Amino acid sequence: MERVSDTLCFGGSQGVYSHDSAATGTPMTFQVYLPPHEPGERLPVLWWLSGLTCTHENAMIKCHYHRACSEHGIALIGPDTSPRGDEVPDDAAYDFGKGAGFYVDQELPALIEGEFPMLDLSRQGISGHSMGGHGALTVSLRNPGRFRSTSAFAPIVSPINCPWGQKALGGYLGPNDDGDMASWRQYDACALIKQGARLPELLVDQGRADPYLEEQLKTHLLEEACRAAGMPATIRLHDRYDHSYFFVSSFIDEHIAWHAERLKA
Amino acid sequence: MERVSDTLCFGGSQGVYSHDSAATGTPMTFQVYLPPHEPGERLPVLWWLSGLTCTHENAMIKCHYHRACSEHGIALIGPDTSPRGDEVPDDAAYDFGKGAGFYVDQELPALIEGEFPMLDLSRQGISGHSMGGHGALTVSLRNPGRFRSTSAFAPIVSPINCPWGQKALGGYLGPNDDGDMASWRQYDACALIKQGARLPELLVDQGRADPYLEEQLKTHLLEEACRAAGMPATIRLHDRYDHSYFFVSSFIDEHIAWHAERLKA
Repeated sequence: MERVSDTLCFGGSQGVYSHDSAATGTPMTFQVYLPPHEPGERLPVLWWLSGLTCTHENAMIKCHYHRACSEHGIALIGPDTSPRGDEVPDDAAYDFGKGAGFYVDQELPALIEGEFPMLDLSRQGISGHSMGGHGALTVSLRNPGRFRSTSAFAPIVSPINCPWGQKALGGYLGPNDDGDMASWRQYDACALIKQGARLPELLVDQGRADPYLEEQLKTHLLEEACRAAGMPATIRLHDRYDHSYFFVSSFIDEHIAWHAERLKA
Repeated sequence: MERVSDTLCFGGSQGVYSHDSAATGTPMTFQVYLPPHEPGERLPVLWWLSGLTCTHENAMIKCHYHRACSEHGIALIGPDTSPRGDEVPDDAAYDFGKGAGFYVDQELPALIEGEFPMLDLSRQGISGHSMGGHGALTVSLRNPGRFRSTSAFAPIVSPINCPWGQKALGGYLGPNDDGDMASWRQYDACALIKQGARLPELLVDQGRADPYLEEQLKTHLLEEACRAAGMPATIRLHDRYDHSYFFVSSFIDEHIAWHAERLKA
């Protein structure tokens, strides 16, 4: 693992790292923000998963999590959304291939555990935006007990029911030949909940002026799935907010405080 | 004037606008953040001047002023740093021509006054970063009484005494033929103070790990000029912080609160 850069922000360290990934066969870049801490102190961790087209860098610049992470003493880790490089198969569109991994695989946690001894992986939360919100929900639902807290901004809640998801799941997992979508359902938050997966609670923020709400995000499907399953979920719809990081940054303080309450309890 | 985009952030509106500039003969882009406000309410204004290579967009994304501007009810205006377009004379280096205007001319205030009736230009503050910090100091020193509050992050305090400034002032204003730099001194904060220009007070933040501190920024020259002139100035040096917006965003809340105190008094 190589440290690419390290910059002081709100008294903590915003680092960028690179490692040779066995899962992708390419170098992968990720970012870690460490809040100010004492030697020997162990920090709870919030995973941040970004959306379509993003690299590790978008959230570092646009999400504005540093202040709240510094204040609450939460480390934040942000992986890239896909492998990169000329040899990586790509697609002409932005919603498949590079920048569009859909979080169907992850090897980073093991690397983090070895390289960052100040991080306490017994206290992990997860959040993300758009495709990364889908990632946060499904990674958490598929790994019961691993995350103490799960939230999302404008998540794709049911990829089997939207064009972005159908293209990605078909491309990465193979066509839905038999029509029952058994393999696809393992990466669909609503389907996982219907099949019995549960989280103790959930926080989701969604803008009502989000241009992707109706065709791609379909927040109401998550509301219905949680209600039918009796799973506690706070799903907030906000007038006039769109899909951008201007929306995310407006509410990131509240999400980090919410995770901090659960990670530091 | 054309509105390019308008995005909700912290309950306020982050807008981007374009107009045909008479001063540059090109279209110019600028951004305005309007905090939440009532119809008829008039808002104090903070001008934000960005640094070398920046457009109107850098601060919108990286400066993280929205939360504090929303909380304190301050509008923020950020012009581009130079004209743009294929027909604009440029330089191979980043520190002259496009993205490097050095704030030697301004026509935007008159346009703003006509187009944004909710802005109260009797209550203006000014701040900026690096070359934009130079801009904030010199525009304010050259226009006594126009700005109620002036601050800067990592400003170029004496362009006549550093390579960035010597190149820019020589290029825009002509060579320093006679050796007394009379025209150059009009755009040098330290020289203006020595010549008698005064501000009621000043807030400056500077990182000690800033790679430009010694050769280009020379904060100590501003400290000396203010001390010699008896001009009140709070100039803070911060260990380990560099020249990036990670530094600026760490202290922007304090600057906005400081301006708000003076603009809303």
